[in-house]
Amino acid sequence: MAADRVIGVDLGGTKILAGVVDRHGTIERRHERPTPTSSQDELLLELEAAVVELRDDGVAGVGFGVPSTIDQRAGRAVSSVNVPLADVDLRARMSERLGLPVGVDNDANAAAIGEWAFGAGRGTRHMVMLTLGTGIGGGLILDGRPYRGAVGAAAELGHIVIEHDGDPCQGTCTGRGHLETLASGNRAGAEARAAFGPAADAHRLVRLASEGDTRARAILERLGRRLGSGIATLVNVFNPELVVIGGGFAAAGDLVLAPAREVLAREALSPARELVRVVRAELGTAAGLVGAALVGFEAVDR
Amino acid sequence: MAADRVIGVDLGGTKILAGVVDRHGTIERRHERPTPTSSQDELLLELEAAVVELRDDGVAGVGFGVPSTIDQRAGRAVSSVNVPLADVDLRARMSERLGLPVGVDNDANAAAIGEWAFGAGRGTRHMVMLTLGTGIGGGLILDGRPYRGAVGAAAELGHIVIEHDGDPCQGTCTGRGHLETLASGNRAGAEARAAFGPAADAHRLVRLASEGDTRARAILERLGRRLGSGIATLVNVFNPELVVIGGGFAAAGDLVLAPAREVLAREALSPARELVRVVRAELGTAAGLVGAALVGFEAVDR
Repeated sequence: MAADRVIGVDLGGTKILAGVVDRHGTIERRHERPTPTSSQDELLLELEAAVVELRDDGVAGVGFGVPSTIDQRAGRAVSSVNVPLADVDLRARMSERLGLPVGVDNDANAAAIGEWAFGAGRGTRHMVMLTLGTGIGGGLILDGRPYRGAVGAAAELGHIVIEHDGDPCQGTCTGRGHLETLASGNRAGAEARAAFGPAADAHRLVRLASEGDTRARAILERLGRRLGSGIATLVNVFNPELVVIGGGFAAAGDLVLAPAREVLAREALSPARELVRVVRAELGTAAGLVGAALVGFEAVDR
Repeated sequence: MAADRVIGVDLGGTKILAGVVDRHGTIERRHERPTPTSSQDELLLELEAAVVELRDDGVAGVGFGVPSTIDQRAGRAVSSVNVPLADVDLRARMSERLGLPVGVDNDANAAAIGEWAFGAGRGTRHMVMLTLGTGIGGGLILDGRPYRGAVGAAAELGHIVIEHDGDPCQGTCTGRGHLETLASGNRAGAEARAAFGPAADAHRLVRLASEGDTRARAILERLGRRLGSGIATLVNVFNPELVVIGGGFAAAGDLVLAPAREVLAREALSPARELVRVVRAELGTAAGLVGAALVGFEAVDR
């Protein structure tokens, strides 16, 4: 019995985006609400309310994309960035409360699945996605299906080491020189403030560079070259057809991607280097919502 | 019609190891011959002769493991380390000359498949293998099967970047700060010579460290810590159950692996960090031969 529609829920640091989505990726209805950040209980109630609000008889399941490391054995959100969600069996709890099949995945995995099914990655079988935002997330499509690893914790592509013993990572990560630390929007903001004063941020940096400011361009070039080392690692590891770059900081476009491609050409091996294309994501913020819905369909079909 | 036996051929820089292997991984007969290094034609003839010598009526196919980047579309060896094999359609040529189904793979992929089927990786579904030799090779078992990427060029795990803009890579690779450059047996030899004079090499370095020499131990610790950053990258990317360390330089054992595990614990995220085990390979030089044979069985069964 095929389900017609599911509810996808994309949890972000500032808002919860929920929508009713069909198997063609069409978003029938959608709704946003602010993300409660004061407590886990409040956040869980709000996630539930986001579903209840949209639910009707044609809804067969729910998928959640959350900014968390995941353990799929229990559908657990292990730890999170920017939201109070830690060590909670999200799948079991939501499935019990809602009485529906529930799927849970990392938000960047969900975005990758969305772009693969309906966006920049349509028709590919080997795709790597990087979401450049405050941090850097990742998602993998390998041999024509989402790859999640042994327990669902794979594709933490912001946490590949590109500078052994380099700058310390943020949050719960104790690592050093990770791609996220050296090439994220957060890093762009920090370098912008160091160069242009405390009011500067990543947006202003990109605007200044677009206007031709040489210092701003140099900063973005440096970040882009680091990104290129990260992309090259992934190309040498996966031999993908496509690397999709999404997230808010991807708005910097070729100011970051041109130097990234230059370093990629130096670092990646043939024939993987000639094959791969690096492109911008196409679905914008809808990728996470549609991808979460597809995770919901996976749960329905299981 | 299931084939009973195939011939596996493991091409190394100094010798060609060939054997008749059954589906249980049992090596019935084996033979070694020196690797011709003067020309590609001579090498190809010798690879063919290694098969002809062992062939009988029960042999249904052949698998080659070669120290080369591979393009599986044509079974092509694109470029190689230490052997004269470049831009040659090895699968088509051998299949035509031998009149048998032929499979071709990178030697480190073959070793990983061998260890997964019959060695340290038995029973796992998510396994990463690193072969520490003169260079560093890699192989991937993902979701219960070998992963080769879009055209077969994946798993070049020695060419992940762990030091952005770092020391230049060797051979045809134009990259910088790759794991192979910073943590291979070749690097160990170079650091040994810098510390102990031109007669020193990786073997002597390991022996000195085993005897308690503090400078030798410090060098191996430094290499091990870099290896730890590389392993952590792979753990954060793949969430594997197991990382298998093989190759000649793995003989350094805990002199290298203890510092590697220390850095891994710092760099890898939870829950992947708690799940993964890092172990030594079990099959030694037989891994490449048995793995090549399994690549041959893949060709027979296709």
